[in-house]
Amino acid sequence: MNRPKRNEHNREKILQAGVELFNKNGYHGTGLKQILDACQVPKGSFYNYFESKEQFAVEVLAYHHQQEDEKWASRIDESEENQLEAMRKAIYLFIKDYETDPETACSLIPTLMGEIGNATDSFREIIRYSCEQIIDCIEEDFEKAQKTGCARNDLPPRQLAKMFWDMWQGALLRCKVEASTQPLRDLAETCYILLQPPGRADGK
Amino acid sequence: MNRPKRNEHNREKILQAGVELFNKNGYHGTGLKQILDACQVPKGSFYNYFESKEQFAVEVLAYHHQQEDEKWASRIDESEENQLEAMRKAIYLFIKDYETDPETACSLIPTLMGEIGNATDSFREIIRYSCEQIIDCIEEDFEKAQKTGCARNDLPPRQLAKMFWDMWQGALLRCKVEASTQPLRDLAETCYILLQPPGRADGK
Repeated sequence: MNRPKRNEHNREKILQAGVELFNKNGYHGTGLKQILDACQVPKGSFYNYFESKEQFAVEVLAYHHQQEDEKWASRIDESEENQLEAMRKAIYLFIKDYETDPETACSLIPTLMGEIGNATDSFREIIRYSCEQIIDCIEEDFEKAQKTGCARNDLPPRQLAKMFWDMWQGALLRCKVEASTQPLRDLAETCYILLQPPGRADGK
Repeated sequence: MNRPKRNEHNREKILQAGVELFNKNGYHGTGLKQILDACQVPKGSFYNYFESKEQFAVEVLAYHHQQEDEKWASRIDESEENQLEAMRKAIYLFIKDYETDPETACSLIPTLMGEIGNATDSFREIIRYSCEQIIDCIEEDFEKAQKTGCARNDLPPRQLAKMFWDMWQGALLRCKVEASTQPLRDLAETCYILLQPPGRADGK
């Protein structure tokens, strides 16, 4: 059986606690003690893995971004629907995750973007990089949707990807404040209609 | 001459410092001392106006929301273009403000939504209220745009307003991280195309 090594397992446990706590309380609102308590590791052990709270936050962002990215890509790849329909269904799978376990209802990226997005060079860089990577992925999805004729092609796929990413972040923020997944449902349905090719604006 | 009273003037000065500091450093990252230093008022004077830092943040949000709302509405009312074009131009006027004075490039609402949007009932309430008010305004704009035939009418104006608001917040967050107003330009141009009535998708 291919188990993760103990060290790697501990590291992931701390990163996962970081995702949940930063998402809930923000960066400055989360103390090191809370992180250690949440994952039951001693302070010394934390500093074996991460050199500072700032470096930890950078790695939490990279870890979270990779997880979400893989989930998004595999959900679309596994779908047998057309590309635009697959994207809509992928959003509903995220909604289902959030409703099953509200702790995963994660607005980590927009939360840290707002709070520390321009605080230091390393924050700015990791956040820019994470956004760019996600927008690259979504751009590929829209390129495929346009090539297969299921999305409008009067706007470049990059432009659609940025629009989709921006809307997603705004919707995640509304989910947090409204304590509801309705904003993500709005996103799924509105995008589906707006992105239809001309003449199919009813989504059929 | 109709000058604001001295008290009101001081109160506004403190609120304005709050907008700038919370926007830059977040809620937890801004100390009371920084606020007092920025607006040169003594601590006792601060507590004459606001009972706590939390109450202050609530009033900062209400103050900022009202300012932005009035600016948006008057810019659209003053325009002689059709409604959709007026909305596009209003976004460019915000961009111009931000480029003239980068301190006003304000992502206060998405910043505080992410950091403290679900922290306490009073935060949640003021943020929900601010968002609702802005979405109400934008809904009216889209209703007018649909009635005058310059926007697509296959989606309810409320749905368009939520989409527009979400995109705007995401774009403001990218502006912060990218230190550029390009994301707002993307917003203006993408929306303008996506919201054209069918058959006018070239934006002409």
